[in-house]
Amino acid sequence: MKKADIIQEIKRKQSFLCTGLDTEMGKLPAHLPKNDVGFLQFNQEIVAATHAYSVSYKINTAFYEQYGSEGWQWMEQTLSYLPKETFKIADAKRGDIGNTSTMYARAFFEKMNFDAITVSPYMGEDSLRPFLEFKDKTIICLALTSNPGHKDFQLIKDAEGYAVYERVLETVAKWGNTDNLMFVAGGTHGDILKRLRQIAPEHFLLVPGIGAQGGSLYDVATNAANSDLGLLVNSSRGIIYAGNDEDYADKAREAAASLASEMSSFVNQYLV
Amino acid sequence: MKKADIIQEIKRKQSFLCTGLDTEMGKLPAHLPKNDVGFLQFNQEIVAATHAYSVSYKINTAFYEQYGSEGWQWMEQTLSYLPKETFKIADAKRGDIGNTSTMYARAFFEKMNFDAITVSPYMGEDSLRPFLEFKDKTIICLALTSNPGHKDFQLIKDAEGYAVYERVLETVAKWGNTDNLMFVAGGTHGDILKRLRQIAPEHFLLVPGIGAQGGSLYDVATNAANSDLGLLVNSSRGIIYAGNDEDYADKAREAAASLASEMSSFVNQYLV
Repeated sequence: MKKADIIQEIKRKQSFLCTGLDTEMGKLPAHLPKNDVGFLQFNQEIVAATHAYSVSYKINTAFYEQYGSEGWQWMEQTLSYLPKETFKIADAKRGDIGNTSTMYARAFFEKMNFDAITVSPYMGEDSLRPFLEFKDKTIICLALTSNPGHKDFQLIKDAEGYAVYERVLETVAKWGNTDNLMFVAGGTHGDILKRLRQIAPEHFLLVPGIGAQGGSLYDVATNAANSDLGLLVNSSRGIIYAGNDEDYADKAREAAASLASEMSSFVNQYLV
Repeated sequence: MKKADIIQEIKRKQSFLCTGLDTEMGKLPAHLPKNDVGFLQFNQEIVAATHAYSVSYKINTAFYEQYGSEGWQWMEQTLSYLPKETFKIADAKRGDIGNTSTMYARAFFEKMNFDAITVSPYMGEDSLRPFLEFKDKTIICLALTSNPGHKDFQLIKDAEGYAVYERVLETVAKWGNTDNLMFVAGGTHGDILKRLRQIAPEHFLLVPGIGAQGGSLYDVATNAANSDLGLLVNSSRGIIYAGNDEDYADKAREAAASLASEMSSFVNQYLV
């Protein structure tokens, strides 16, 4: 999928929402069986209820891997529920030496049909390049994350006063283009996002941290939107666990619609 | 598994070899079927041939994930071939915000019975702490990796002249102890390993990069062994693909025995 396809979807749905399918057996509504059938029914109904408002879906691999190879089957099955036009992200935070990264790319881009994968930059260029060689696929590189631990290493400043996350943005931006490369930028950082935009003005940003983690959609949009809109804002728990009764899918639809409605004014403002 | 258990095995086998099961369908010997049966028979025979010389086995998750959920089944099955006394490493390079890292830990420490997992430090403290809460399990944190890309971000120097990898060693060392924390240190770095040892004198190091990547066992041992020996040196392709004919298991045994023999003199020197 290319940037233009995503922008088209954002215009069509008047939303830049990425719904995170962070599904856990223990959080399924009481009436669903706590097994593969219940887990997959939940995902299928959540997708059916939210896809009118979601331009993207994000599957966090950890939630599925905790159930072992069976969880991987559920991940593969869940992918088949996602409409073709949605931007399908494996939130996997992979990255390894060259030939190993090629295998991760095969897993998520070929064996499964994800459009994008989140990657960690710690191992440098030869750990990311192999992913970029896959046609019409995108890597989303960690830059400034939303969690408290972002302070430990991402904010280390070099002798010239640049933080590690700034060096990551500046350096990784040279390896890809605005079609095959995005960055993860935590929604909890307020106007630091402006600084990110100075370094990477044209790349899409995947923004987690809205809702449960405390970030505000208004702050994110006003600090980080660009002339393409340039944002995919993720919400997971706030949507998929909006209800926990038999009407959970309706509640999820309402939560997604509410976020999309808030987003539509920014879509109108930035994408004219 | 605790540090003392690993040291005991090193003494018993006179070896600090970690054999990497980087198995690929396309590289199986010609007489083995290119399917689950051939793949698993290969792993089982390699383990049977090498375990007298290997104190540890490392499963690189990418090699298995490229085959999707079926590959995860093979990973689970391969674990059952590994002798109880060996230190079983998932080379997965995971790391995410707190509750997500807990799920990765469950996947590798509970759903599967790995003793250790490699993790990436980029997201900081709350991305690593959850792994450390699992009893008798170990994280192996990337510090200075063996690939060319280590230069991109790991060597960025802060205003005081410390490199990012040095800050990682110094900081992460405070979060764990010598039982539940090791570091990855590339075998291609020669006497930079001495610097690593100044910062983390007591932790075990997992050292890839010997053999195919060009590192030398002699350099690694003389620069980085400590009074516990303190090293697990990995070889993957050099052992498992030492032969590619019907006698591949014998060739793998010879390759492992040869490395172990080279290692035994260091075991005698450092572990008295």
